[in-house]
Amino acid sequence: MIINIKRESILEELLKVSRIISQKTLIPSLLGILIEVKKDKVTFTTSDGDTSIKSEILIGNNLVIKSIGNILIKNKFIIEVIRKIEDEFITLEAVEGSLIKIKAHNFDSVLNTLTASDYPHLAFETEGKEITFTSNLLKEIISQTSFAIGEKEKRIVFNGLNLKTDLTKQELIITATDSFRLSSKKIKYHNSNEFDVIIPGKFINEIGKLINDNDDIIMKINEKSVSVLLNNTIIQSKIIEGKYPDTTKVIPDNFNTSLTVNNRELIKIIERASVLSNEAMTTIVTLKIGNQKVKITSFTQEIGNTEEEIQDYKIEGSDQIISFNSKYILDALKAFKTREVTIKMIDEAKPLIIVAQEDDTLQQLVLPIRSY
Amino acid sequence: MIINIKRESILEELLKVSRIISQKTLIPSLLGILIEVKKDKVTFTTSDGDTSIKSEILIGNNLVIKSIGNILIKNKFIIEVIRKIEDEFITLEAVEGSLIKIKAHNFDSVLNTLTASDYPHLAFETEGKEITFTSNLLKEIISQTSFAIGEKEKRIVFNGLNLKTDLTKQELIITATDSFRLSSKKIKYHNSNEFDVIIPGKFINEIGKLINDNDDIIMKINEKSVSVLLNNTIIQSKIIEGKYPDTTKVIPDNFNTSLTVNNRELIKIIERASVLSNEAMTTIVTLKIGNQKVKITSFTQEIGNTEEEIQDYKIEGSDQIISFNSKYILDALKAFKTREVTIKMIDEAKPLIIVAQEDDTLQQLVLPIRSY
Repeated sequence: MIINIKRESILEELLKVSRIISQKTLIPSLLGILIEVKKDKVTFTTSDGDTSIKSEILIGNNLVIKSIGNILIKNKFIIEVIRKIEDEFITLEAVEGSLIKIKAHNFDSVLNTLTASDYPHLAFETEGKEITFTSNLLKEIISQTSFAIGEKEKRIVFNGLNLKTDLTKQELIITATDSFRLSSKKIKYHNSNEFDVIIPGKFINEIGKLINDNDDIIMKINEKSVSVLLNNTIIQSKIIEGKYPDTTKVIPDNFNTSLTVNNRELIKIIERASVLSNEAMTTIVTLKIGNQKVKITSFTQEIGNTEEEIQDYKIEGSDQIISFNSKYILDALKAFKTREVTIKMIDEAKPLIIVAQEDDTLQQLVLPIRSY
Repeated sequence: MIINIKRESILEELLKVSRIISQKTLIPSLLGILIEVKKDKVTFTTSDGDTSIKSEILIGNNLVIKSIGNILIKNKFIIEVIRKIEDEFITLEAVEGSLIKIKAHNFDSVLNTLTASDYPHLAFETEGKEITFTSNLLKEIISQTSFAIGEKEKRIVFNGLNLKTDLTKQELIITATDSFRLSSKKIKYHNSNEFDVIIPGKFINEIGKLINDNDDIIMKINEKSVSVLLNNTIIQSKIIEGKYPDTTKVIPDNFNTSLTVNNRELIKIIERASVLSNEAMTTIVTLKIGNQKVKITSFTQEIGNTEEEIQDYKIEGSDQIISFNSKYILDALKAFKTREVTIKMIDEAKPLIIVAQEDDTLQQLVLPIRSY
């Protein structure tokens, strides 16, 4: 294979696909980026075994193909070399079977490669039930829900995002939970395709990084896989097998207290209360409602404590003292783009729910922590 | 003690002095920042035993003193709390002997402290031979030499920067070496104070961070210590005891080859050659002069190799093949602000010298590496 290619274009594709590679793979060839040069295009493929991505550049102003062939490049060095080159175009050439030559005007580099024929065959499915998202909507869904996906939960279904249709209500319900908090988003869905699928967290996060503004995004779902088509790129993942729990039963209907506050102010107050911790991830902060006052406090034995009053609030119902993990409550609050949020509580042991009057598509649930 | 102080001012001083603290100290009180509230000012002091800093804020618009006293605050949390507060002014108050209260409008925090009376007495010397630098000159000296100071050299004198006067030539000579490379800067010195002193690397680097533009900087040197006065701050260090070697003997006089090149171009070429390494710090690159060509090459067994021709150069003398540590040569080249540099060589085993025709104050020496 010999190609002459715009440096910027190949760098963009290499950076895009290299994120999928997992250093933990037991299949050595999956450490590489497969570059396939065909008559009319070059494709770049990587996979971690579950999630795979393929991206292509067509012949044209940015690409001249002089001879075809496949090569499996093995490491970050090709990216580093190409990044440092200043020429507009570079030449890639396979030499002696196992080497790749990267050539610019006065610069030559020869790198070792892996054996392309060892690369496993990846089937990129193109059949499935189709949904189309605008880029802004899909970005919003991901940013408002994906943080609540479990990372290494024993219940495997919690490591993914549940997408489920409700044809009678014409809704698509997106749910993430790690069993300590739950994020639920509902969007309109005018289609007759029914599904209930669990998409891995890694895949969702990669989609979030790949989306550009103004793209229309096509998602295809079948029994085994979910794939997203995005301009010149297809990214695909196995779906997580298993039945996602009916989370509607987890969300309480009746509350004893409802606190409405300015969301941005509350976020800042909880952030201030969270500083007194060596592990910021697990600061416990306490919300105290009583004596006509609303306070956020924190206490760390060896360091000290903080206390701050919330100034503007609207309260309905009884007094409360509820402690929670500051990271969980901050993630939940930051998911709202609204000026105000409402926190609904039952007591110090029951889940609290966050909603916003200005946006009925989103609902966040956080379990309290027993702090005594 | 009770003070009301501008949040921004105290944060600036706390951040400034906290950099000196070493977590490795065996004196527990040196983990703290000593805050001394006097009738007319507040001072902030830290020390690692060798280097000490004291900074002050005078009463005025930014500071109201309500009662005096000392307090030793122990950790990063006070900085984090103050950083997060949004009020313009905060109140600090010592309570119950061992606590400090940080108060803003609606916010209260109480932190544990250390025992101020345990803090060792630090003598800040104000006597010594004085030199004044413009901020720009001192910044230049530090950036052009300090990288070559050893970090943990067995020969203790190599862990510092040597400042030595030559009264006959009316020069101040600044030298840094870690025994693999050497940086030497000469500036004009019209004064009758003679000295030959070794200043610790940590101190020099702190000075570099403290200098603002347009400050005039007064350095005072006596037999035991060096101190720098900078607006409201004094920073002081023990000098390193011992005799700095006569480095003029290390620098060769006669060379076989002289290569003059565009400095920026050469830096980029060596950076490109340095990418093929898992530890970027120790890439070996080779300069090859021969057959009317000048090339920079690199070779890493498991990864690959690079080769690049230098386009514009002027050469005098014989052919050469010399290998060197890319970090050392890059540090040396980057110290020059000139368009061109000249590399003078003897052979593959002897030190090479870098100078610039446009700037005769600076000279860099780098030892080659035997690469075969």
